[in-house]
Amino acid sequence: MPKKLPDVQNHQDSRGVELEKVGISNLSYPLKIRDRNNGLQQVTAKFDILVGLHSHQRGAHLSHLVSALVRYKIKTFGMDDLVSLLKDIRKKQDGEGIPFDSAFIKMSFIYFIEKVAPESKSKSLVPYDCGFEISLNNPGYKSVIVNVPVSTVCPCSKEISNEGAHNQRATVTIKTNQKLSDKRIVWIEDLIRIAEESASGEVYGVLRRTDEKAVTERMFSQPAFVEDVVRNVVVALRSRIKNIEYFVKCESFESIHPHNAYAETSGIS
Amino acid sequence: MPKKLPDVQNHQDSRGVELEKVGISNLSYPLKIRDRNNGLQQVTAKFDILVGLHSHQRGAHLSHLVSALVRYKIKTFGMDDLVSLLKDIRKKQDGEGIPFDSAFIKMSFIYFIEKVAPESKSKSLVPYDCGFEISLNNPGYKSVIVNVPVSTVCPCSKEISNEGAHNQRATVTIKTNQKLSDKRIVWIEDLIRIAEESASGEVYGVLRRTDEKAVTERMFSQPAFVEDVVRNVVVALRSRIKNIEYFVKCESFESIHPHNAYAETSGIS
Amino acid sequence: MPKKLPDVQNHQDSRGVELEKVGISNLSYPLKIRDRNNGLQQVTAKFDILVGLHSHQRGAHLSHLVSALVRYKIKTFGMDDLVSLLKDIRKKQDGEGIPFDSAFIKMSFIYFIEKVAPESKSKSLVPYDCGFEISLNNPGYKSVIVNVPVSTVCPCSKEISNEGAHNQRATVTIKTNQKLSDKRIVWIEDLIRIAEESASGEVYGVLRRTDEKAVTERMFSQPAFVEDVVRNVVVALRSRIKNIEYFVKCESFESIHPHNAYAETSGIS
Amino acid sequence: MPKKLPDVQNHQDSRGVELEKVGISNLSYPLKIRDRNNGLQQVTAKFDILVGLHSHQRGAHLSHLVSALVRYKIKTFGMDDLVSLLKDIRKKQDGEGIPFDSAFIKMSFIYFIEKVAPESKSKSLVPYDCGFEISLNNPGYKSVIVNVPVSTVCPCSKEISNEGAHNQRATVTIKTNQKLSDKRIVWIEDLIRIAEESASGEVYGVLRRTDEKAVTERMFSQPAFVEDVVRNVVVALRSRIKNIEYFVKCESFESIHPHNAYAETSGIS
Repeated sequence: MPKKLPDVQNHQDSRGVELEKVGISNLSYPLKIRDRNNGLQQVTAKFDILVGLHSHQRGAHLSHLVSALVRYKIKTFGMDDLVSLLKDIRKKQDGEGIPFDSAFIKMSFIYFIEKVAPESKSKSLVPYDCGFEISLNNPGYKSVIVNVPVSTVCPCSKEISNEGAHNQRATVTIKTNQKLSDKRIVWIEDLIRIAEESASGEVYGVLRRTDEKAVTERMFSQPAFVEDVVRNVVVALRSRIKNIEYFVKCESFESIHPHNAYAETSGIS
Repeated sequence: MPKKLPDVQNHQDSRGVELEKVGISNLSYPLKIRDRNNGLQQVTAKFDILVGLHSHQRGAHLSHLVSALVRYKIKTFGMDDLVSLLKDIRKKQDGEGIPFDSAFIKMSFIYFIEKVAPESKSKSLVPYDCGFEISLNNPGYKSVIVNVPVSTVCPCSKEISNEGAHNQRATVTIKTNQKLSDKRIVWIEDLIRIAEESASGEVYGVLRRTDEKAVTERMFSQPAFVEDVVRNVVVALRSRIKNIEYFVKCESFESIHPHNAYAETSGIS
Repeated sequence: MPKKLPDVQNHQDSRGVELEKVGISNLSYPLKIRDRNNGLQQVTAKFDILVGLHSHQRGAHLSHLVSALVRYKIKTFGMDDLVSLLKDIRKKQDGEGIPFDSAFIKMSFIYFIEKVAPESKSKSLVPYDCGFEISLNNPGYKSVIVNVPVSTVCPCSKEISNEGAHNQRATVTIKTNQKLSDKRIVWIEDLIRIAEESASGEVYGVLRRTDEKAVTERMFSQPAFVEDVVRNVVVALRSRIKNIEYFVKCESFESIHPHNAYAETSGIS
Repeated sequence: MPKKLPDVQNHQDSRGVELEKVGISNLSYPLKIRDRNNGLQQVTAKFDILVGLHSHQRGAHLSHLVSALVRYKIKTFGMDDLVSLLKDIRKKQDGEGIPFDSAFIKMSFIYFIEKVAPESKSKSLVPYDCGFEISLNNPGYKSVIVNVPVSTVCPCSKEISNEGAHNQRATVTIKTNQKLSDKRIVWIEDLIRIAEESASGEVYGVLRRTDEKAVTERMFSQPAFVEDVVRNVVVALRSRIKNIEYFVKCESFESIHPHNAYAETSGIS
């Protein structure tokens, strides 16, 4: 008689400890997200879905969190769809006596953009680690995150050496935070573009020799410390996406050291 | 004048060292692969694409390896399509004087299968790390790889304890190798099923309480060491996929230890 | 003439962007840290060492950050030594016109504790991922972090099943934050003990059959959701380490799901 | 009455499946290994310890594998000590009716070497991922493995560009295999040196500006594809460590691509 199985999660709890985030982590799920150029892009996402839990309830019903996602299976995901999903999740747990304003979702995925090589015009796809994050906690926020592979040419090495300069792959991270009521769409594509233009050079899937020459020369005409990359991103955000909270970092896998160079900052553009 | 750029890779090499595998690794690419139940499934794959290199040539043309994949962008990938792709890649490098029979491709991806909970019949997707591998080296082979999350209940702990038994998540890996001329399709779905039936229990995305009861009781009715799981897989392969080379391993994330339990074996079914 | 090499990092910067953290990340270094039972324990640590950078200076001198660590090579590291090291680092960069109160260090390492099996009294070492973190930013803080492998037996599964219950390995994280002026030593050993007692069971390197029986029965006498584990930790902190800021989380690698169960909270004990 | 607890692992097995490797994986353990310059170096190692299992026995006694390591706690580890340890482990399981010649151990650890900057003579430590591997299977082998961070300057990019050349961090792996009866010591230090000299440049913990100039100019005077690096290693092995089986690979984290360049080969020097 399944109906009679005890509901242990619903037991009263007497320890007097409210939990800020309870739920599931590391859930893989395939879905379609909005793509500025192609309408939709299918991705394989990793999710954390978490809700706040009153001090008097023993456990959250975790299967509901996964079920919510299953119900959305065929739908497109833009940021607004994620907000709706999260509100549904929160409401479902509300039936269990938990207040509305505490719920959190985070998804990360590899997002592909087709790039065109500078000289041969060869097309290829470049993968970017991206993500969305939403919190309904009063007042809540919604975030877009991009991690962008770029190259950095060391300005010091270039200045002091008779020939060349050490350079390397680096990762630029940009995270924006908006109020839930802010209706602007922050496009993944725009943040990636800003990151790529702020570094010494950008990466491509396919480069012919003519392209490699152009990419190398562009890199060397724009040497940049990690400090420079982060500052260039901030300057670009101030001019192109005004009045938005940002967190920016750059980590450079130095070719002359076993460790990395690192810079970060945050602010409002 | 791009045409006049020197082709450094084509230089003669005098060190007298033949290279077994040269190419690109860790390339992300989205593509559709064959799905037994739904026809096609889009995945985000990671690729290594490598070719042998004669001792007299300095370098391989790596951009050709990526271009080959780009040309296949819109096509379906089954094992045979991968073999064709790899032969194309090999032929392209052959123009550069390298013999036909040395080329290698490996792809890995998360593959989703919809599973039905045993009692509530709730449907949910379970992600599996899967892969294909092909070598054209004489005589060459083609491989299917699945990594399957399962649960293992310790038979010793169950036998000696007054109540319960330690159990945990474990991963079962099955890799099959076939000759290139072997026309049988080894389905990912079949290998996963064998792995799940060989363990104490299997995993689900969504389980209601009635399901959790059934899954727990099934686990405890079928306790299994990692040794048992590997042997069960071998026995199942012998009866269901005859005359195939296999490698099988099981790694169990012991809940009473900080380290893992491990077993592996190989053979022909 | 090395002395005449230009100092590009010292150039004036006109972009008007202050950087919160600049430095090196992922630096490996061997050192001895304080061990409550044995005096000292040698570990292989990973470091991030970062300083704030005024808007008018182009770059930090990263080699100074590493040199600072090299000078400390032969010394013991307790939290206070790390605070001193960081103040030295900050002062060195101050010579370059950056204010005192912005510097940050984070180190993580595997720390071993000898444990005794409950029945056979067999001794073995258990590894724990631990770390320290210090910020000199006004007012600054110093943190101890432990990540502790434990086991969790699902209370719901135990209640509803005729036999057994699913259980699994889980990780409990406790992070404490103190003011720099707080002279109390928060021992890694105490935080680990709290985490282990708050879960269903703890892990050991070596267990004989008599031990395995005892450990299994203890686990089943104390079933715990991730919610329970986090609350038990908070209750223990309130009674044993009073008046300290804490962050606590538990992530459980569910043996019946491909995803994890998760809970976190924070507060002052 | 602990003595009466049933020994489930010792049960007869009737499935007729011999297991090649059974044991524990991912075991962390601190120990001292031989250091050519300093006598001993303490490391935090990860171990896999595995034995073969007859088709008629249900399970191996995994706690014995860990106990064997515990007994060696205070001893120095060179390759010969590892061989002895493994023979002890095998003998202990022999009492359980398993033949002598099937046992396997693998350990990996971060090993530090002090390096001197080329101009300023500043000293700093560089971390290298290293390992040992031993198999007693007839005829058995013993292996030394080093993974060495280096830099590679692209010869093609340098040749075709008006200025500079893309370069990046790369990893060179060298693995040697010897017969158990081969008494030569293959020093980690020698393999690392070969890897560093075979690339465009090597990495350092601390570099002053004069050093950075020297390191950059050295890199650009010795451009190398991954193919070149692997061939240079083979040529060096042939002249410096004769008549040894080797596996060599180089993976380069290309600064102009999101994927890596890769080359590998194997042979006898």
